[in-house]
Amino acid sequence: MNVGILTIKCPDKPGIVALISNWVTTQEGNIIQLNQYSSDANNGTFFTRLKINFLNNTAPFKQRQHDFMPISKQLNAIWNLHDATKKQNIGILVSKYDHCLFELLYRWSSHELNINIPFIASNHKNGEKLAKQFSIPFYYLPITNKQNQEKQLLELAKNSDLLVLARYMQILSPEFIKQYKKNIINIHHSFLPSFVGANPYNQAYERGVKMIGATAHYVTEKLDEGPIITQKIEPVSHEDHIPELKRKGKHLEKLVLLNALHAEIDHRIISFQNKTIVFT
Amino acid sequence: MNVGILTIKCPDKPGIVALISNWVTTQEGNIIQLNQYSSDANNGTFFTRLKINFLNNTAPFKQRQHDFMPISKQLNAIWNLHDATKKQNIGILVSKYDHCLFELLYRWSSHELNINIPFIASNHKNGEKLAKQFSIPFYYLPITNKQNQEKQLLELAKNSDLLVLARYMQILSPEFIKQYKKNIINIHHSFLPSFVGANPYNQAYERGVKMIGATAHYVTEKLDEGPIITQKIEPVSHEDHIPELKRKGKHLEKLVLLNALHAEIDHRIISFQNKTIVFT
Amino acid sequence: MNVGILTIKCPDKPGIVALISNWVTTQEGNIIQLNQYSSDANNGTFFTRLKINFLNNTAPFKQRQHDFMPISKQLNAIWNLHDATKKQNIGILVSKYDHCLFELLYRWSSHELNINIPFIASNHKNGEKLAKQFSIPFYYLPITNKQNQEKQLLELAKNSDLLVLARYMQILSPEFIKQYKKNIINIHHSFLPSFVGANPYNQAYERGVKMIGATAHYVTEKLDEGPIITQKIEPVSHEDHIPELKRKGKHLEKLVLLNALHAEIDHRIISFQNKTIVFT
Amino acid sequence: MNVGILTIKCPDKPGIVALISNWVTTQEGNIIQLNQYSSDANNGTFFTRLKINFLNNTAPFKQRQHDFMPISKQLNAIWNLHDATKKQNIGILVSKYDHCLFELLYRWSSHELNINIPFIASNHKNGEKLAKQFSIPFYYLPITNKQNQEKQLLELAKNSDLLVLARYMQILSPEFIKQYKKNIINIHHSFLPSFVGANPYNQAYERGVKMIGATAHYVTEKLDEGPIITQKIEPVSHEDHIPELKRKGKHLEKLVLLNALHAEIDHRIISFQNKTIVFT
Repeated sequence: MNVGILTIKCPDKPGIVALISNWVTTQEGNIIQLNQYSSDANNGTFFTRLKINFLNNTAPFKQRQHDFMPISKQLNAIWNLHDATKKQNIGILVSKYDHCLFELLYRWSSHELNINIPFIASNHKNGEKLAKQFSIPFYYLPITNKQNQEKQLLELAKNSDLLVLARYMQILSPEFIKQYKKNIINIHHSFLPSFVGANPYNQAYERGVKMIGATAHYVTEKLDEGPIITQKIEPVSHEDHIPELKRKGKHLEKLVLLNALHAEIDHRIISFQNKTIVFT
Repeated sequence: MNVGILTIKCPDKPGIVALISNWVTTQEGNIIQLNQYSSDANNGTFFTRLKINFLNNTAPFKQRQHDFMPISKQLNAIWNLHDATKKQNIGILVSKYDHCLFELLYRWSSHELNINIPFIASNHKNGEKLAKQFSIPFYYLPITNKQNQEKQLLELAKNSDLLVLARYMQILSPEFIKQYKKNIINIHHSFLPSFVGANPYNQAYERGVKMIGATAHYVTEKLDEGPIITQKIEPVSHEDHIPELKRKGKHLEKLVLLNALHAEIDHRIISFQNKTIVFT
Repeated sequence: MNVGILTIKCPDKPGIVALISNWVTTQEGNIIQLNQYSSDANNGTFFTRLKINFLNNTAPFKQRQHDFMPISKQLNAIWNLHDATKKQNIGILVSKYDHCLFELLYRWSSHELNINIPFIASNHKNGEKLAKQFSIPFYYLPITNKQNQEKQLLELAKNSDLLVLARYMQILSPEFIKQYKKNIINIHHSFLPSFVGANPYNQAYERGVKMIGATAHYVTEKLDEGPIITQKIEPVSHEDHIPELKRKGKHLEKLVLLNALHAEIDHRIISFQNKTIVFT
Repeated sequence: MNVGILTIKCPDKPGIVALISNWVTTQEGNIIQLNQYSSDANNGTFFTRLKINFLNNTAPFKQRQHDFMPISKQLNAIWNLHDATKKQNIGILVSKYDHCLFELLYRWSSHELNINIPFIASNHKNGEKLAKQFSIPFYYLPITNKQNQEKQLLELAKNSDLLVLARYMQILSPEFIKQYKKNIINIHHSFLPSFVGANPYNQAYERGVKMIGATAHYVTEKLDEGPIITQKIEPVSHEDHIPELKRKGKHLEKLVLLNALHAEIDHRIISFQNKTIVFT
């Protein structure tokens, strides 16, 4: 099999789909999934995702990417052509709470998450035992000097395709985010934009909300303000004090993280103006 | 504006999207939405829905439909090209309970449901007052002789594009369904396939379920077994006896009906093997 | 039938339930529902709600209330004994959007909401026709001088037991709230504390959330910061622009309002430290 | 601390709460939680659950249970007085799928599930490694002779307070259920009563439902027909084939199992006429 995923963001105009699908034909490809979205009927931005089965197995992806360049120029597009059969390298950052880490490792080990996990890094030693159980390299990077710690992290992450903050309770510096360049997914344990920052379950308890939530979002320089990928909620009552909120919230956190990660590794997400288009 | 919606169901093979999108180009059309789905990667059935903005306003839809015929033959397709700006005529059938009728009329009168309602028919007189309030013709068709009643109904419905059973508590005969030919949407007040037939809230109460549901589905000859379009649920507890289930269920019924109807009038639903593809 | 609802808030200590239930026995009462909650195991506040069937029909409620006073003093309680068979007078305030008003009137007219609606008041004329259809006095109180308008409102509301802001888009002044004294329920069309203030659906769209919500809460002097009674959410996607958010949100608004109102008229809600205990 | 949970089921009549709460007073107890429910206002069955803090720590529970007997006779009650501080022994049965087992072990090891797990038994060897990781005795009991296997199971389970079928894909015989006597909780991977029996996700896919569910229920002699404890659902679409349904369903299965188990070990569930009262 030789399956590729083509994602495109470009100014909208008539004829884009014809242009792209004709190119697919010249590549002996069969479109097996196609989504598109236009931000506005007039002068909007056009987004598309195509899953293509290339019948001619022999051509390498680099060649196909090269072949697409004239089309992309015609469209003035930001685009990507991913090899869908290639597993992505996803580094995991974690602190004390390990339920999200656990879920990722369990889903990975049961072949549901088709990824490589090159490393787990943490500012605490808690996750080490778990990492060993699953035979994944664990790096203990305590924060004595934040700048140094992030330098080590960056070195560690340099070959990864994505970072997942699986309840990593540290704020990554703008420098780190700028230098890492690739996507970073965080789970915030509230229904954003409610309860940004520290201790959202405590904040939720204080406000007396009747539902708690969790949010997966891309990390940007502004804390908890990056584009939202997915959100889930669970009803609670006055009987639920902070420990119950935390217990019930764990499910949500795991669920939003998994959903976001599946969308990400399938290249279903395109960012636009601090929001996400998530093709389903 | 000259907007059309093209829906296609055909055997899957490479090049379909290119074929269709090139045709759109020849029609001076701009694809503003496109969904597709393939039931199977190998020898599956291909489904697509395109929303097209035709820049050349002058060509009539009949002409465009005629122009598409060679393509449809090439694809061996079941297809339709709808004029998206044309309001559909949707007849409503109702019995005693009028909450769904109420919702439809309210949404229609507040310009959220962009449809015509040529008639409301009922085997009870209850809805008459409501119909009058909204100035819609009401037909009281009591069931003394079912065959005759359905004949009257068929006559009434002959120019409609769709029938909605907004809690119509009668079973339409296979003959009626066959002769009406067009789609009929029913709301069943349970989470199908649980609790088919009469009194689903009583059945739900007897079984002691912890959630109740509602289902919008197409009517087929087999009672409550047609393709499901949309479903919703609501948690309940041991405190909820039959009247509470009914009260809580009303919200679900209205919600699934509205969601199904919006999908239907946007031509987002394609039936296949007693299931639905619902493009979102 | 002679059914009463006794609600009590008092410092927690051993023996409260025995004290109260013995009193119920002396009143020839049968407890048919009992909820209780303690805010803290040590030195917390105790909350209870009892639904009592008084077998001796002849005693008037005033007498029973008088009889309970020694118990309430012993408990240092804030309490109430309501006649459950007496319909409450609930005034409705509304502005331009009438979907919540519609829902209330429909549920009231179909005997699901066991209340009196002495008046509908609005700063717009929109609701007048609807009020007439249901034969409820409508008062058009435009806001030329806010102080005067609120004086009229207060006069109108003086015999009501509760005010419902069914999408009343005006902020009631602290003076009004102080003078009205009784409860005021508002629906805010967002998942509070997200998106307080004006145009929450626009705010939600701008932030790119993947779920929208609605919140019913008591009105206090601080805008949208009163105790939350009930909340509901609905998933949305990038396809949902502001009009779709508004359309989908209407369901939520109606649902949270109805749920809150049912809890309120059953005296299931007790406020405490800007939160609510809602007995279910 | 000396905390007990008293659950009572008896014919309803006036004065029950007074009777019980006076008894609590004689035991120097403080009621810290109280729920009650009556199945019917006239001649119904009365259910209650009291969480009691006994201030006099020295009295043993056996003595208190003995002291309550006259009250229970007066009420003609089925009742229990549990020591809330005593961990229950919960045996786990599992087959090939280990996600529910995993969740239980993780929650147990992180001190969220306050139970003892005396054994894990399985008709497959899959769970053995996991059991070892958490240092819990694992018994491989393949089914060559079902009668013998159940005899071994019964011997193993004789000191347990509850059995959890964490995706145990075998049907326990009526004899086993009769002899075990105590509660057995099963998770069925559908929204019961839909899709009883084998392969519910396949059944759900075939029917084309738009939501999948999971149900925790007590095991009775009739397959998948025991009293339902808790249910959860998740929306799905035509894009979700059987593997996606299974993946999404895992979350539901874990969630309903955990919720049911928390209710069970807190003695919040009382069975009645093949339904459950679940006090929240």
